Amino acid sequence: MEERTEIASLGEFGLIEHLTKNFEIKQASTIVTVGDDAAVIDHFGKQTVITNDLLVEGVHFDLMYTPLKHLGYKTVVVNVSDIYAMNATPTQILLGLAFSNRFSLEALDEFYAGVHAACEEYGVDLIGGDTSTSQKGFIISCTAIGEVPPEKFVRRDTARKGDLLCVTGDLGAAYLGLTILEREKRIYLENPKIQPDLENEQYIVGRLLKPEARKDIIEFFEEKELTPTAMIDVSDGLSSEILHICTKSNLGCVLYEEKIPIGEDTRQAAFKFNVDPTACALSGGEDYELLFTVKQEDYDKIKDNAQISVVGYLTDVEEGRTIYTKGGTRHPLTAQGWNAFKQQ
Amino acid sequence: MEERTEIASLGEFGLIEHLTKNFEIKQASTIVTVGDDAAVIDHFGKQTVITNDLLVEGVHFDLMYTPLKHLGYKTVVVNVSDIYAMNATPTQILLGLAFSNRFSLEALDEFYAGVHAACEEYGVDLIGGDTSTSQKGFIISCTAIGEVPPEKFVRRDTARKGDLLCVTGDLGAAYLGLTILEREKRIYLENPKIQPDLENEQYIVGRLLKPEARKDIIEFFEEKELTPTAMIDVSDGLSSEILHICTKSNLGCVLYEEKIPIGEDTRQAAFKFNVDPTACALSGGEDYELLFTVKQEDYDKIKDNAQISVVGYLTDVEEGRTIYTKGGTRHPLTAQGWNAFKQQ
Repeated sequence: MEERTEIASLGEFGLIEHLTKNFEIKQASTIVTVGDDAAVIDHFGKQTVITNDLLVEGVHFDLMYTPLKHLGYKTVVVNVSDIYAMNATPTQILLGLAFSNRFSLEALDEFYAGVHAACEEYGVDLIGGDTSTSQKGFIISCTAIGEVPPEKFVRRDTARKGDLLCVTGDLGAAYLGLTILEREKRIYLENPKIQPDLENEQYIVGRLLKPEARKDIIEFFEEKELTPTAMIDVSDGLSSEILHICTKSNLGCVLYEEKIPIGEDTRQAAFKFNVDPTACALSGGEDYELLFTVKQEDYDKIKDNAQISVVGYLTDVEEGRTIYTKGGTRHPLTAQGWNAFKQQ
Repeated sequence: MEERTEIASLGEFGLIEHLTKNFEIKQASTIVTVGDDAAVIDHFGKQTVITNDLLVEGVHFDLMYTPLKHLGYKTVVVNVSDIYAMNATPTQILLGLAFSNRFSLEALDEFYAGVHAACEEYGVDLIGGDTSTSQKGFIISCTAIGEVPPEKFVRRDTARKGDLLCVTGDLGAAYLGLTILEREKRIYLENPKIQPDLENEQYIVGRLLKPEARKDIIEFFEEKELTPTAMIDVSDGLSSEILHICTKSNLGCVLYEEKIPIGEDTRQAAFKFNVDPTACALSGGEDYELLFTVKQEDYDKIKDNAQISVVGYLTDVEEGRTIYTKGGTRHPLTAQGWNAFKQQ
């Protein structure tokens, strides 16, 4: 039988101390950490970048198929991804958790093990923790902090006409991972004797449950002395993010379907589920890749990086937002890229 | 009939834009605000102080008797209070909200009106907003950011033997406000025709529903060139906060019951409810006053401030943590000050 320690046996301060005791400080900027009214950071002349996210059980994740350790890891990744999307380096996080009494200390330890692994991977310090009870479900609030040299941050609204639209890695896998996990959940609920069939689906399931943020790309920009003209992370699907940059920068765009990076495992899973792989990339979401724009003269700096695909370019706003399909036909790009695509 | 606009009619980005459109930037340190992957702040050589809090309906507040506008105000106050408790000035906040579909746009507008009023009062900028749905209840995540000149922040663990224990304002009122609202709720649920009887209880109810943070005290410290040796905000009751400072600083203390500041309205309400007013101050919580320690030689700087009461002093850890009652008897101070007090 699994061990179960009631959280009440530690008290609130005992709990925070227990959960954070293995976290070592890695950043010189962390001056005061967990255990005071507030944390203190000093970015020594750099600017501070900050973002927060609320993850709610039953809305953002399903504990039926999400291991708590993965969830802890993903909580950090989702937030540091927003910091990278500003061309900044993540340095600290604060966590607030609310959970019902069905949670044991061992369950929280699992969650924090994932948080710890991600803090190690991305070099961030956990500097604040707040825990409380909830009436229902597990609620996670995460604030990520980062630093950037003065005025080196990259916004969404600063792209220019003619800039190249670039995206990292490959897209659409997380959506298919979610699709297969939801299918297996339905099958299990109908007949708990049937074991989930996830063979050959490690890639797409892994992309959903344990995504990574593109630390390597920010380091690559620094190495190449390249500053994108605009950047955003791909959390809601490629079309939605491209439209954000276009709207905020008051521009149009041309996107080429054939240039959208989609992995072989993703393609095969899409065919199995009888969905269009391009639609998964355009509207699937949760890929946590980076979408950014660069000046045309910077093309040479990115062309040899296999992790970066040029998928189109930006135009005057009057030219609209367009996707050219593989067949050569032209469609307006909409936030519901998938539906728009299918209807035409 | 009250107007009701479905939130879904705006979409997520439309919603954030709608809710934040009246918020003007007040701080020079706010470089990038709502609407990008993350916000950017520049404290220009000062250190950054940061805290976050999760407020969950049914755990931290009851919407049956908490007006949404007050809740929005209190959300900001609770968080800036932690910033003041570091001897820092709050500059920005980020908000994350999750709500079920019983919430209309008008309800969120009410909440944001309160947030806006508090941002004006405390001079802070709202720089990030995240909204999502919840399966049940209203969940609020707030991150507050502040600034402090290098090494001027005040921790909990730096008090010294002989320092004076000081507390601001008066204590115990919020707990009695909660008591009366809970009583009126029970009466109403038993018989909805009975109107709540809150006459003469404005002070205690106001202290619960619309608390203020002690901005004035931090300004007073600056004016007097006084740096407390330790500080914490009083959110869980005076005894719990004193014990925090003692434990973190490895000290004992002597506290005098007769010195604990309790308002006349609070005393009268306590007698009406047949509870000990001192117990309300020691264990009530939610007062959002400041508890701090100063060196004895700084007594002259604080003695004329009517908002500051000296309630005791710090001793060697071996001397224990003691409260002297009005009757002159001596009791150990415990985190459950109330119970300990009653038993003896």
